[in-house]
Amino acid sequence: MQNPVFIPGPTNMPEYLRRAVDIPTLDHRSSAFAEMLAPAMAGVRAVLKAATSEVFLFPSTGTGGWEVAISNTLSPGDQVLAARHGMFSHRWIDLCQRHGLDVEIVEAPWGAGLPADRYEAILTADKSHRIKAVLATHNETATGVVSDIAAVRRALDAAGHPALLLVDGVSSIGSMDFRFDEWGIDIAVTGSQKGFMLPPGLAIVAFSPRAMAATESARLPRCFFDIRDMAKTNAAGLYPYTPPVGLIHGLKLASDALLAEGLDAVFARHTRIASGVRAAASAWGLSLCAQSPDLYSQTVSAIRTPAGFNATEIVTRAARVYDTAFGTGLGELAGKVFRFGHLGQMSDLMALSGLSVLEMCMADLGLPIRLGSGVAAAQEIYRATAERTLQRAA
Amino acid sequence: MQNPVFIPGPTNMPEYLRRAVDIPTLDHRSSAFAEMLAPAMAGVRAVLKAATSEVFLFPSTGTGGWEVAISNTLSPGDQVLAARHGMFSHRWIDLCQRHGLDVEIVEAPWGAGLPADRYEAILTADKSHRIKAVLATHNETATGVVSDIAAVRRALDAAGHPALLLVDGVSSIGSMDFRFDEWGIDIAVTGSQKGFMLPPGLAIVAFSPRAMAATESARLPRCFFDIRDMAKTNAAGLYPYTPPVGLIHGLKLASDALLAEGLDAVFARHTRIASGVRAAASAWGLSLCAQSPDLYSQTVSAIRTPAGFNATEIVTRAARVYDTAFGTGLGELAGKVFRFGHLGQMSDLMALSGLSVLEMCMADLGLPIRLGSGVAAAQEIYRATAERTLQRAA
Amino acid sequence: MQNPVFIPGPTNMPEYLRRAVDIPTLDHRSSAFAEMLAPAMAGVRAVLKAATSEVFLFPSTGTGGWEVAISNTLSPGDQVLAARHGMFSHRWIDLCQRHGLDVEIVEAPWGAGLPADRYEAILTADKSHRIKAVLATHNETATGVVSDIAAVRRALDAAGHPALLLVDGVSSIGSMDFRFDEWGIDIAVTGSQKGFMLPPGLAIVAFSPRAMAATESARLPRCFFDIRDMAKTNAAGLYPYTPPVGLIHGLKLASDALLAEGLDAVFARHTRIASGVRAAASAWGLSLCAQSPDLYSQTVSAIRTPAGFNATEIVTRAARVYDTAFGTGLGELAGKVFRFGHLGQMSDLMALSGLSVLEMCMADLGLPIRLGSGVAAAQEIYRATAERTLQRAA
Amino acid sequence: MQNPVFIPGPTNMPEYLRRAVDIPTLDHRSSAFAEMLAPAMAGVRAVLKAATSEVFLFPSTGTGGWEVAISNTLSPGDQVLAARHGMFSHRWIDLCQRHGLDVEIVEAPWGAGLPADRYEAILTADKSHRIKAVLATHNETATGVVSDIAAVRRALDAAGHPALLLVDGVSSIGSMDFRFDEWGIDIAVTGSQKGFMLPPGLAIVAFSPRAMAATESARLPRCFFDIRDMAKTNAAGLYPYTPPVGLIHGLKLASDALLAEGLDAVFARHTRIASGVRAAASAWGLSLCAQSPDLYSQTVSAIRTPAGFNATEIVTRAARVYDTAFGTGLGELAGKVFRFGHLGQMSDLMALSGLSVLEMCMADLGLPIRLGSGVAAAQEIYRATAERTLQRAA
Repeated sequence: MQNPVFIPGPTNMPEYLRRAVDIPTLDHRSSAFAEMLAPAMAGVRAVLKAATSEVFLFPSTGTGGWEVAISNTLSPGDQVLAARHGMFSHRWIDLCQRHGLDVEIVEAPWGAGLPADRYEAILTADKSHRIKAVLATHNETATGVVSDIAAVRRALDAAGHPALLLVDGVSSIGSMDFRFDEWGIDIAVTGSQKGFMLPPGLAIVAFSPRAMAATESARLPRCFFDIRDMAKTNAAGLYPYTPPVGLIHGLKLASDALLAEGLDAVFARHTRIASGVRAAASAWGLSLCAQSPDLYSQTVSAIRTPAGFNATEIVTRAARVYDTAFGTGLGELAGKVFRFGHLGQMSDLMALSGLSVLEMCMADLGLPIRLGSGVAAAQEIYRATAERTLQRAA
Repeated sequence: MQNPVFIPGPTNMPEYLRRAVDIPTLDHRSSAFAEMLAPAMAGVRAVLKAATSEVFLFPSTGTGGWEVAISNTLSPGDQVLAARHGMFSHRWIDLCQRHGLDVEIVEAPWGAGLPADRYEAILTADKSHRIKAVLATHNETATGVVSDIAAVRRALDAAGHPALLLVDGVSSIGSMDFRFDEWGIDIAVTGSQKGFMLPPGLAIVAFSPRAMAATESARLPRCFFDIRDMAKTNAAGLYPYTPPVGLIHGLKLASDALLAEGLDAVFARHTRIASGVRAAASAWGLSLCAQSPDLYSQTVSAIRTPAGFNATEIVTRAARVYDTAFGTGLGELAGKVFRFGHLGQMSDLMALSGLSVLEMCMADLGLPIRLGSGVAAAQEIYRATAERTLQRAA
Repeated sequence: MQNPVFIPGPTNMPEYLRRAVDIPTLDHRSSAFAEMLAPAMAGVRAVLKAATSEVFLFPSTGTGGWEVAISNTLSPGDQVLAARHGMFSHRWIDLCQRHGLDVEIVEAPWGAGLPADRYEAILTADKSHRIKAVLATHNETATGVVSDIAAVRRALDAAGHPALLLVDGVSSIGSMDFRFDEWGIDIAVTGSQKGFMLPPGLAIVAFSPRAMAATESARLPRCFFDIRDMAKTNAAGLYPYTPPVGLIHGLKLASDALLAEGLDAVFARHTRIASGVRAAASAWGLSLCAQSPDLYSQTVSAIRTPAGFNATEIVTRAARVYDTAFGTGLGELAGKVFRFGHLGQMSDLMALSGLSVLEMCMADLGLPIRLGSGVAAAQEIYRATAERTLQRAA
Repeated sequence: MQNPVFIPGPTNMPEYLRRAVDIPTLDHRSSAFAEMLAPAMAGVRAVLKAATSEVFLFPSTGTGGWEVAISNTLSPGDQVLAARHGMFSHRWIDLCQRHGLDVEIVEAPWGAGLPADRYEAILTADKSHRIKAVLATHNETATGVVSDIAAVRRALDAAGHPALLLVDGVSSIGSMDFRFDEWGIDIAVTGSQKGFMLPPGLAIVAFSPRAMAATESARLPRCFFDIRDMAKTNAAGLYPYTPPVGLIHGLKLASDALLAEGLDAVFARHTRIASGVRAAASAWGLSLCAQSPDLYSQTVSAIRTPAGFNATEIVTRAARVYDTAFGTGLGELAGKVFRFGHLGQMSDLMALSGLSVLEMCMADLGLPIRLGSGVAAAQEIYRATAERTLQRAA
């Protein structure tokens, strides 16, 4: 466990956040806990640019967060609109179907962004407003594709459609720009183990006032995930059950740290690191899964290997021989891509070390790449920007 | 945060378990994770004496565990039988009702055990077997009452009734004897933060083969809590979503530690500590909420204060003036009892320190107790048994 | 390792200090280290009330600090004046003798304070100023006796004697009042593991300008402990060899914490805790080794047991049966006293827990004490002062 | 503090060793401490291949260890023979001179090994055996040069000279082969923060029976560093003063880990990593300070930069711009070399990351190196050996 990980989450954790989470037992009915909870929620609101939202922190995961979103706002048989263009958008659709929702699925290539134009057409056609919610995956972790949430909002507005806009920001929030209020998002979902650089264990969700209002009429059964209980107890600094005190304490410190660095600086840092990784891929003659530069994720790069080559072998070899973890391709991308996670805690040095290991694996496996070539391409990017980044911080 | 806590969970955590949980990020799709998961599950099976069960570890809480139990085995409108004799049995009933189940409630005094004879009468009368599940709270954390689960099994057997037996062992498992197989339990539920002495964040559930079979026909919607996904992925050393790796690692070490000490020794230790606390209460002239000695919990003592005295003042004063946390009375016991949690990590010295603080608070608040009297009563118990405990360990 | 310790050092360590010490490797030639070192030294100066001093932090122990004091200021054959009234004053004398110094020893009972009047007589008689240094043990850890350092300074002044005043403040500094400048101290010595509540590993010494001047002519050989090398490199934020970075970081935080609480509040806290322990001893019918109340140490109580009883048995039993550490009698007090260390991190609850264990041990061993009696006496003290302490802090 | 360090000590610390050091306060007069001490000493003996030696663990540093070596075996005016070929051999000579020893200095170029032939000539000429001790620096941390200690022993034997052989193994022991018994070493010195991968704070010294015998007649004053006190108390599981309990616990685990991996495997690992770093230097067209391959250290590489270029600028830039620490040139090598420490905890990935940063710095500063070239050269070495290393471990 001596090398950093390059999976697209859980991310590497800074020691100060690990320590913030690992605290002795604290009475969760004490004022000390209440004094952690309120700023943790406020921090999340600031990171999401969601001033008007209510934030909820469930002892769960991002998947639990999806369930929070739908079970608190929808009723059995409700129609929802969703695009499928990667494993995680696929899974959210599956979750909706298993809750008895009627999902209108817009299929798109894995590597494409969310097709806002097709959303607009469908919403415009839905004159009776049978569609109650629109799902959008901001950053498809499986493909390394970021989608334009503002465009989804524009589609809703152009159609004059009242459906709620539910956004999966699991692998974007905290590392890439996210504008809950400006984009007119109704529910955003993330987890503790991504941009907040904490251990897994928290579903972090924000509800707009419209989403809060929808909870009253929603008929899907829920109890553990019921935000009515959560909202009522949270207001008194309490929880409806035993809260994950350490993670909430960690979340307070994580959001403090992101805000202290400055969100723009955080996003620029991830863009800079990601640019180096993409330059390396290009130097190796490999292309990204993401179809065009505007779709490039700043938190994860899914890199395609040549036809006939099993990309998973790279990941397996890196783990077995070089003790280093990368992500494999998922679903229909299995064997076609490997993934380099550069979200959360990542430095120039760390990114270069990950690229070095990938080069050794690819050479070992007979891919025609030149050792050091990807590293050199990333070094050029990092050299060109390191000094400027320092100056900006000063 | 320098003093131990005496709340009835989360418990004090031994440092070796905190460290087992606080590990660097590990790829949850690696064999290293699989090698933690299997022994953690095996450890739970051994602690529950549930050789035939399947164990599931959800990133959630005990409340989530209740939801796992019912949503995977029941269908909307199903009838369940449950006793209400404390806050936690009340809450489980509430959870069932919110999932659309039809709960036949047997009311019992808060301080009484589960009335197995009334269960038997109801089950015997249910000739058509409309009751699909029987709920039982092994240890009512609110009242400090342990109930006889074997008697519930006998009631089911005497009635020749096929209902599933679902048991809440949240505050007993790991600290008090629990016999999943012998008592014919179908589902048992606990959390990480009680007898396993870990941070909160895990719902730990065990399913009997009959419970597993029931999952196929259960119609309550579930996805995050669906044990079918969990069972399928777990079998490959994986999870349907991001697992709480640290907690699972901790659970492996916690069960190793309990089994190394010997379950009988662990249970004897808790009985011994609890006896001291009860002797102190008696020396103070106070009685337990539990109605009779056979109902005394070995993990939490709910102690009644004199009529007209607000028991919560003791808890408030202990926190404010002596920086020490105890539990308040909940629900209809609010103001009538305070609770001393002695589950998880607790030594003679720690228990005596908690009693010392309680004495100061009670004296400060004008209760007619003699300082040192409860401590002395507990000391007598601990002195008489300390040497023997050592010898047994040797 | 679950119970606190009650040895008179190393003390219990607050978790925030353990974490301050346990940091990843940091380049000790970096500015980051320099930025820890300067405030750590400034903090020590403030805690010692030694504004004019130079502070040095050696990777060593208090014993090493004694050696720093004499080897940097004295020459072979130099005469020093020292009282022997406990094991630690005895050891410092021994260290001097092994360095070839000529020690004029003033014997005093173990339990008495330093006899300043006899110092004055000897110093007055030393017309030729052959005595180059006067040693004084501020707090004799072996006997629980605090001595009057101001009186030693007055003795020197009354005699018009220029000898340096070297003070062992190992078990007082940080927990009891210490006035380097006001008392005219030339060198003070302590360690990291006492009032600063850190792990052992640092000798902390302060030199007055006169002591600094004496380093030029001192002829005792030294190299590792040479403060000339230390002073020169420290001035540049460096060390003459590898510094104990973590301990220095911890020292910065420890002094910050003591100063934030307020030194008077810190001293009052120790006096308050110590008063409870003494009240307990009195309730047990036992007397302190310290001969009179003005000599009572606020950091350690050496408690005499009845003639014919081996006090060490209490300590042995506490460790073996109750997993709790106390101090034994040392040297001529072996078997006659046991010691309760209440320096560093200690709360009401912790002190009461230590007293509870002692009572069980004494009863087990047949001493005629009443269980709970010492606890009750301490509880009375703590109750009477707890509220006031809170108010002062507010 | 997110990047590894590449200074030649203190090294990066594995988390399990940090945790072994960071333990709660433990009574250092308890059997628990004695049970740590004996195996820690035995572990050191095994790592040093010093079966016949006595091992001592002082709360100090390597410099303190040098002082332990000479002050316990020599008397004022004694003659010692020493070579000066780097900053650390220079400093040990200085320490001897400040203790009043008469040092016969053999000057050699910084970059050369210890000239055993000149030792032999001098020892042969010393018919009256005025030379009491011969000093040898096994691994010159300043120059990255390993010397042949067996050759020094042969020189002593050829001359039939009884002088003690004192060896500085500070930066070799635990990472490079060291044969105390076979090489006829009388005293070996190291510190905790190098091959044992612990925080600084321990001087680790081993004495042969001949060295132990010499302690009786040695007249240099010592007290803190007196091994007679240490030997006597250690024999009872005790210390003459407060021991650094955490570091001793860490040392036990560190030696356990080295022995479990196998010393040959540990040494091969360091050779492998070092080969990669040297291949990178060669690819950059830079030469090592060490004059020939037989002198190459496996723990630190001192790399010369072109004439007219200030090597320190690389180190400064790496720290300031890329948050990464390397070693500067010391003494007469200041500005001429930079140093890459690869001792202690170091993986392929980590070494490659350090090389990546160096390349960026050199390019930034205008040195004519090709980005990626050094990385590629090291990758070739690591690829060629990684699989074989795995197989050996299996």
